[in-house]
Amino acid sequence: VAGNMPRSETIAAVATARGKSALAIIRISGSDAFKIFSRIVLNTKTFISAPARYIGLYTIVDSKTKEIIDEVTAVKYLAPKSFTGENMVEIICHGGTCIVDEITESIISAGARPAGRGAFTRRALENKKIDLIKAEAIRGMIESSSNFDLACARKLYNQPPVFLKEWRETLINILAEVEAIIEYEEEDENIAKIKEKSLEKLDKIIKKLEKEIKKREKIRNVENYLKVVIAGPANAGKSSLFNLLLGQNRSIVHDDPGTTRDLISENVWICGYHLQLIDSAGIRSTIHEIEKQGIERSREAYKKAGLIIWVTDASEPFSKEEIDEINSLKGKEIICVINKTDICSGKRKFDIAKKMDIEAVEISVKENRKIELVTGKIVSAIKRVSEEIEIPDMFLNERYEEKGKEVYKETCFARKEWGRPEIAAYHLRNGINRLEEIFGKKDDEEILDKIFSKFCIGK
Amino acid sequence: VAGNMPRSETIAAVATARGKSALAIIRISGSDAFKIFSRIVLNTKTFISAPARYIGLYTIVDSKTKEIIDEVTAVKYLAPKSFTGENMVEIICHGGTCIVDEITESIISAGARPAGRGAFTRRALENKKIDLIKAEAIRGMIESSSNFDLACARKLYNQPPVFLKEWRETLINILAEVEAIIEYEEEDENIAKIKEKSLEKLDKIIKKLEKEIKKREKIRNVENYLKVVIAGPANAGKSSLFNLLLGQNRSIVHDDPGTTRDLISENVWICGYHLQLIDSAGIRSTIHEIEKQGIERSREAYKKAGLIIWVTDASEPFSKEEIDEINSLKGKEIICVINKTDICSGKRKFDIAKKMDIEAVEISVKENRKIELVTGKIVSAIKRVSEEIEIPDMFLNERYEEKGKEVYKETCFARKEWGRPEIAAYHLRNGINRLEEIFGKKDDEEILDKIFSKFCIGK
Repeated sequence: VAGNMPRSETIAAVATARGKSALAIIRISGSDAFKIFSRIVLNTKTFISAPARYIGLYTIVDSKTKEIIDEVTAVKYLAPKSFTGENMVEIICHGGTCIVDEITESIISAGARPAGRGAFTRRALENKKIDLIKAEAIRGMIESSSNFDLACARKLYNQPPVFLKEWRETLINILAEVEAIIEYEEEDENIAKIKEKSLEKLDKIIKKLEKEIKKREKIRNVENYLKVVIAGPANAGKSSLFNLLLGQNRSIVHDDPGTTRDLISENVWICGYHLQLIDSAGIRSTIHEIEKQGIERSREAYKKAGLIIWVTDASEPFSKEEIDEINSLKGKEIICVINKTDICSGKRKFDIAKKMDIEAVEISVKENRKIELVTGKIVSAIKRVSEEIEIPDMFLNERYEEKGKEVYKETCFARKEWGRPEIAAYHLRNGINRLEEIFGKKDDEEILDKIFSKFCIGK
Repeated sequence: VAGNMPRSETIAAVATARGKSALAIIRISGSDAFKIFSRIVLNTKTFISAPARYIGLYTIVDSKTKEIIDEVTAVKYLAPKSFTGENMVEIICHGGTCIVDEITESIISAGARPAGRGAFTRRALENKKIDLIKAEAIRGMIESSSNFDLACARKLYNQPPVFLKEWRETLINILAEVEAIIEYEEEDENIAKIKEKSLEKLDKIIKKLEKEIKKREKIRNVENYLKVVIAGPANAGKSSLFNLLLGQNRSIVHDDPGTTRDLISENVWICGYHLQLIDSAGIRSTIHEIEKQGIERSREAYKKAGLIIWVTDASEPFSKEEIDEINSLKGKEIICVINKTDICSGKRKFDIAKKMDIEAVEISVKENRKIELVTGKIVSAIKRVSEEIEIPDMFLNERYEEKGKEVYKETCFARKEWGRPEIAAYHLRNGINRLEEIFGKKDDEEILDKIFSKFCIGK
């Protein structure tokens, strides 16, 4: 059984993101893939005679009404030489959501079933086209939201973690030794020596696990460092700066659907780094409950931010409120951006910021003047953070980290109960099992279901 | 010049929507497309020797650091047998935004330029691979948000509007006749006859234009009919019903990035219709300015809605406020959904709704009971609307409509000034020019720039 459907069923789903776009890809996989595709195209013969992996032009019709839906290109892959290892068709159609839905409907009414999350990859796994490590590496690559996350996924993809196997063998050795200890008398001098050596091995592995966990945690935390919050009083030009920073980088980045309901946030790509740029509500005292909540959310955003860009108006003096707010952010990476230098000099505010020991830059968003100072500051802040980052050798995604922590816990228990070898052995066995679950060795349907439920549809 | 760059430049852009997805497509087009792609892959030789339109496996690297970015499939198209008519490469990569950005960066640093909006289609147009009508039809198909919009775009794509040419010829004939009238004496009996016949022709064309404009306007208005607003007091189960209706249809529809900041809205596909389902804020009296604004927005949404689903709690009596609100919606398509029948009978409220002459259904969102009554009501409301819809023959998109209205205006002027043939001729000439602009006959860079600025990137 693949996912929740018999393996013989042919599945279909859109494999690209939804939205208005030039193109989209729809995938069909299964023994009936070619038959089903033939039912929804006008030029059936062309498709049947087309060689594998050769892109042809086709006219897609509604399988019931035979009305024309779209002109597409499509390619067939013959089993087992396809991503899933089954017969597959990849349709490249126009990217409108209406068109994609109509084609998908047509395929489904022609006999395919809508594919569940990760259904294609799961078939690839079952047909031994990829292993679980590679499957998860692909998911990691797709879902990575920072350069470091991506580096982890890529490491997993390119060189499956050999350490996993080494550690498993070491743990099995230790377990064998502990079992020997149980078997024989403790008075035996040899056994005492084994016990000591074995403990050393265990300590080493515990230390390695600890180190890995720390590396991984740093990578998870770094996502916060990549949050850049634009803060400051109302009407200082926060949103204009936000839009300007976005606009400069839009040619590559476009609009990501990252708008939250409370704070406006967009993912941008600045000098090779993926950042989350957040435009926060202006801080001011208010009696309105809802506005208070908005400001509360801004303050929470400050806490999580890796860098705060405090935008202030050159033509107005610092208010007491503003100074208090800035002081409360001490300890954070902060830059004071004195805006509107087109209408007024920022010198006075610059000096005050200097006295407060806060880096300041004078810019004009309106005249697009000295914005590079802000970008430069963002990049140097990220670089400082990145220098502390090391890509783990083993815990290269969430699931590995989770399992790894369980292994760590079990090995620590084993160490604690070293004097009681039966209990130590019990924990060692648990640890080995957890480690083996990383490979999916247990071949447990439930584990696989859990893993694949996190994939996206069409993958 | 194509767009804002010399035609010789090779351009690149992602052609699929952004977001986490299994796959994405990146396009490269231009004379250096193959050279540039060769610079970013490890297996250059495979690519060079690959036949056109044949999908191969490639390893993409950073063009500077040579670090591996992704394993992809790619296909080359040899000029002029490609979408743009130039050499092209289409890369199908993993769909993560980080990966897509890195590959795009690599292509650009290897010598390509980021493509502007519609740049690929514009090259296709310049290389005579498609005409302007087809180009705009494709844009229409991609951007259509209703079945009727899509039907318009498809009509344009499949059979370019012959009426345009007919009407142009008729107008030119009328103009020639008016010019003859100017040339000769009006006393001539023949001329008087021509004048009369010519006016008849003009009247006919004016009537046809009127009819077309009305058809088009109906289609634009129908979008509102496809807005289904879920309304009602707080805690009646509005959001639960919203999620349930979405969830039932998600297997095909997924999450569209249609969430507005004020009202939560999602595009769904119910029984073959694309709808916009809107979850509105609960109506109640409040003193808070911001909450008032939210409620104001809900009321605006009611006005634009094609169908209002008024959700009410079976376990609570109708409040005076609620009854007033429902009464104020008289004249709208409305259905009263009595929810929570799992805890209380909805009979009393059902009878009250009946007295108010409003259709009511009793359901339980919690127990997923009788939801099909709501879906059925939605579908029948849309069907009623669709029956009144006719697809225009000519004004198949916004631009055509705009130009068509200008033609209409000029012909009406000409008719009004029929007694003064010089002025009538002037307006007829204007009308013909406007009509010709639809074809892009004028070949005016400015008009083309304007048209293509509405395309998406990667198209």
